[in-house]
Amino acid sequence: MAAARARSEERRAAIVRAALEVIAERGYRGASLGAVAERVGLTQQGLLHYFPTKEALLIAVLEERDQWDTGGGAREGWRLDLLGSLVEYNAMRPGIVQTFSALLGESVTEDHPAREFFTRRYAQVRAEMAAVLRAEYGDRLPGGLTPEQAAPLVAAVMDGLQYQWLLDPDAVDMPAAFRDFLRLLGAR
Amino acid sequence: MAAARARSEERRAAIVRAALEVIAERGYRGASLGAVAERVGLTQQGLLHYFPTKEALLIAVLEERDQWDTGGGAREGWRLDLLGSLVEYNAMRPGIVQTFSALLGESVTEDHPAREFFTRRYAQVRAEMAAVLRAEYGDRLPGGLTPEQAAPLVAAVMDGLQYQWLLDPDAVDMPAAFRDFLRLLGAR
Repeated sequence: MAAARARSEERRAAIVRAALEVIAERGYRGASLGAVAERVGLTQQGLLHYFPTKEALLIAVLEERDQWDTGGGAREGWRLDLLGSLVEYNAMRPGIVQTFSALLGESVTEDHPAREFFTRRYAQVRAEMAAVLRAEYGDRLPGGLTPEQAAPLVAAVMDGLQYQWLLDPDAVDMPAAFRDFLRLLGAR
Repeated sequence: MAAARARSEERRAAIVRAALEVIAERGYRGASLGAVAERVGLTQQGLLHYFPTKEALLIAVLEERDQWDTGGGAREGWRLDLLGSLVEYNAMRPGIVQTFSALLGESVTEDHPAREFFTRRYAQVRAEMAAVLRAEYGDRLPGGLTPEQAAPLVAAVMDGLQYQWLLDPDAVDMPAAFRDFLRLLGAR
């Protein structure tokens, strides 16, 4: 049983990696369950055994990305300037940013399967950002906000800029704009 | 011909108003073309003559909202503190905010019919915000940014906070968070 479970988890991980590749190559709409199944050498029926819907697979992909981006831990160990590097890194992988943004948009509609994932993720990101900001600035940022007041703004700027950048990458320098915001947070 | 055109425009306006009502009552998913047609006393086929797709109708609704919110003009005549009031107003109309956010999410996918609308709208909003910020602060904001640097951040915070608020209205006080950001922009 333990060996079977390990094999099943390995297979799940391989599917998520394949999905990430297909997303990078073909974008959100191109990442069909069929295309992912083909990449990993399964029938579409076989893939449905691991991920019953496209949304379930995409949520697994986004969870995997969060794991990578945080080095497998929480964001609490981060420093504020690493956030700027993360946004720079994101600007080199439009496929996954598009997937995140499209699924986030869908998630606010009634009974969407990704709603719980994003709700939980934002609560976690806000708490972790507040901890990062407190480590950097103490109980009050130079501009006057508390870490808890600034945390939702950090997440909002990061996600809001992604939409402007995805729609018009030549008009919006996403990493530069995010660094402008970080400077604003720290400006006296 | 002129009378026919006037009648047709009147009918379009009535459909957009009906769509806004249906969105307010039933949200993004509940706002089907059938429900809107029924509200305005048309067959679904009759409605398709004015708006061939749900996306076309929703774009018209969002354009109409922008007209209302800006008093029929550009945002350039605005003052910065009015932006805070707009976000407060938005917090009282979750249906239209949900529609905006869901459609924005879809728009970043390949060949989406709303892509051009949002791309154009963001270019306009950034230009108008920069003008509002310049009128308030001159060529350099107290925190050190230029109006052109701050403008995409204002739009990003506004739209990014909407996702957090729609997902978890009890956890995120959207108007308060946006006013925090405005204070940060103006803090010395």
